[in-house]
Amino acid sequence: MVHPRVLHALSLPLLGHLDPVFLALMNEIQALLRATFQTHNEFTIALSGTGSAGMEAVIANLIEPGDRAIVGVNGVFGSRLATMVERAGGTALRIEVPWGTTIPLEVLQDRLSRSAPVKAVVLVHAETSTGAWQPLHEVGALCRNHAALFIVDAVTSLGGVPVEVDAWGIDACYSGTQKCLSCPPGLAPLTLSSRAVHSIQQRQTPCHSWYLDLSLIAEYWADRTRAYHHTAPISMLYGLREALRLVHEEGLAARIARHQLNSDALMAGLQTLDLMPLPPAGHRLPMLNCVTLPDRIDDAMVRTELLNEYDIEIGGGLGPLRGRVWRIGLMGESCQQAHVLTLVNALEEIFARHGWLRHPGRAVQAVVETYTDSQRSARRSA
Amino acid sequence: MVHPRVLHALSLPLLGHLDPVFLALMNEIQALLRATFQTHNEFTIALSGTGSAGMEAVIANLIEPGDRAIVGVNGVFGSRLATMVERAGGTALRIEVPWGTTIPLEVLQDRLSRSAPVKAVVLVHAETSTGAWQPLHEVGALCRNHAALFIVDAVTSLGGVPVEVDAWGIDACYSGTQKCLSCPPGLAPLTLSSRAVHSIQQRQTPCHSWYLDLSLIAEYWADRTRAYHHTAPISMLYGLREALRLVHEEGLAARIARHQLNSDALMAGLQTLDLMPLPPAGHRLPMLNCVTLPDRIDDAMVRTELLNEYDIEIGGGLGPLRGRVWRIGLMGESCQQAHVLTLVNALEEIFARHGWLRHPGRAVQAVVETYTDSQRSARRSA
Repeated sequence: MVHPRVLHALSLPLLGHLDPVFLALMNEIQALLRATFQTHNEFTIALSGTGSAGMEAVIANLIEPGDRAIVGVNGVFGSRLATMVERAGGTALRIEVPWGTTIPLEVLQDRLSRSAPVKAVVLVHAETSTGAWQPLHEVGALCRNHAALFIVDAVTSLGGVPVEVDAWGIDACYSGTQKCLSCPPGLAPLTLSSRAVHSIQQRQTPCHSWYLDLSLIAEYWADRTRAYHHTAPISMLYGLREALRLVHEEGLAARIARHQLNSDALMAGLQTLDLMPLPPAGHRLPMLNCVTLPDRIDDAMVRTELLNEYDIEIGGGLGPLRGRVWRIGLMGESCQQAHVLTLVNALEEIFARHGWLRHPGRAVQAVVETYTDSQRSARRSA
Repeated sequence: MVHPRVLHALSLPLLGHLDPVFLALMNEIQALLRATFQTHNEFTIALSGTGSAGMEAVIANLIEPGDRAIVGVNGVFGSRLATMVERAGGTALRIEVPWGTTIPLEVLQDRLSRSAPVKAVVLVHAETSTGAWQPLHEVGALCRNHAALFIVDAVTSLGGVPVEVDAWGIDACYSGTQKCLSCPPGLAPLTLSSRAVHSIQQRQTPCHSWYLDLSLIAEYWADRTRAYHHTAPISMLYGLREALRLVHEEGLAARIARHQLNSDALMAGLQTLDLMPLPPAGHRLPMLNCVTLPDRIDDAMVRTELLNEYDIEIGGGLGPLRGRVWRIGLMGESCQQAHVLTLVNALEEIFARHGWLRHPGRAVQAVVETYTDSQRSARRSA
């Protein structure tokens, strides 16, 4: 879901991509993105492509032929990152762990100590294919000790859980607009530390991609140059500015708390339906709730009934998790109490109809209790 | 300018990128694009990036390391294409001719005969930096005789002059949405012949770019697979469908005639102001009217007064033409009689104010006469 103010912004008449009024809008987007990424990085922009374009831009610019990068692989997106490292001519040193789990700090530490120097360590903050929430706050220091760049995929996390680029020592971080920022897909917010920018300036060979060459794109976003590279997607940038304004009107902390509360309520309901979270405790993303299915449940039947009768779309499992899990998004505008109640109620009805319900009347009740408890503790602390 | 129906389409609520309703919309876009490119190519899609992403996708997928390609260079975009060939690991055999002119068929013929086999011949149909209109209809046969693929940049031409992909034997053609299709920038229409698709299937090495890997993107657009690659830019695709519907409601032939008539009227007015076309007769694009400035005219002063007092933006010269030409766009929705009259009248006023006007009262009159003559001959033939 996208806020009506964002939809309205998309429909505004177009300005030229070098018009001074439009350039001021770009500056505003940069300031809003810095606040969202919690960074002072000058190089903070919105790239003209979806989140995967952000991924490719970061890898294709920071990895040169012959470079080695450690890549955490615990789902679809880690695996995609490793492929991109290889397409950039680099060597991907994959750390593979079971889908649903995260990459342990000790394993990273061990790999960095044993291996010849690597150019970068690449981790997915929020693995959308499994719901796993990767801890990052101690990795930056580790990377600096080994003179490696720290690259983070924050496509699904940005705006829903903390992403602290400066505090965590992240050198390159990219996201998408259509997850917790609640803007239509089509742009990739992206920020680079001065170390990352320096690394791009020191390249021995030009980046394979001209369209995603960040040294050229920087010349368009920089106030002192504004050199034409490619025509900016004007309407999408109108939409992103409005979406980011909404994020900061709500406040990043309040938005993050909202994501956590709605996820807690959802999970309370789902657990009474015997739908248990896939990732271990402490590593469960609030905006992407991944639960395993008991054998008695027919995956496709439930998802079809949800879509046709209740207008609710939830994700199925990908790759090795196909048919074994559901992935339930609660992102940005869509992350609201009404959606949690509607979904849990719908599942309770469908399960009852098929004789899969073991504890009738408990699911919606568990959801409501979570919200009541939260209000009570908020009043107490007020 | 973008039609209100397109702006409205951009503001519609979002569908999922694998929702059956959205997939039907993608099919409709493909059919409308085939009609616009005048092709039966199955591989006809809208790529998730601006026109330059279309350029990069075509080059990065069709040129492998070690391949040689002949590239016509007569402006900014030919030069960008040659750079992309080199970034893809290929060798660009540049045919350089003066900016404003086009690549002669005999020179191409000669180069193809003398040179070792080349993988492709790459030409810019409408060179936006000079207003030059490259003839293409005899090049396809020539390329086939030499077993070379024929690649065409139609960013500015599509929807404004004929682009006959099948009839002219073009193997790969891409465009942008923000020129004569009058949709906001952000997508690149792209079509490949079966020869081009075959060439991609036969690659020895994977494409450097994962985001623009057309063999993967094809799996998402193909009805039989619909495999997730990256999240499609939903809102932009809503906009493109509506823009293409408007193109075909008007009719391609009528739209092309409208572009020619408004250009004829504009040029009639500009010539009375001593603003002479840069490209030679027969090679002047109707949607991008490039005229040279007499010495007495102050380039920056006129463009500033046009923007501040009349709200009209015209393009200045790029590269070697900086300060020497103006580039006046008359594209899609913006290509209308009122705009031609407003601009010519504004220029007449500004020139008069600065004492640069040699034939007072003639410019607007010349514009009006062109429209009157056209109406008269239309009545006669009716």
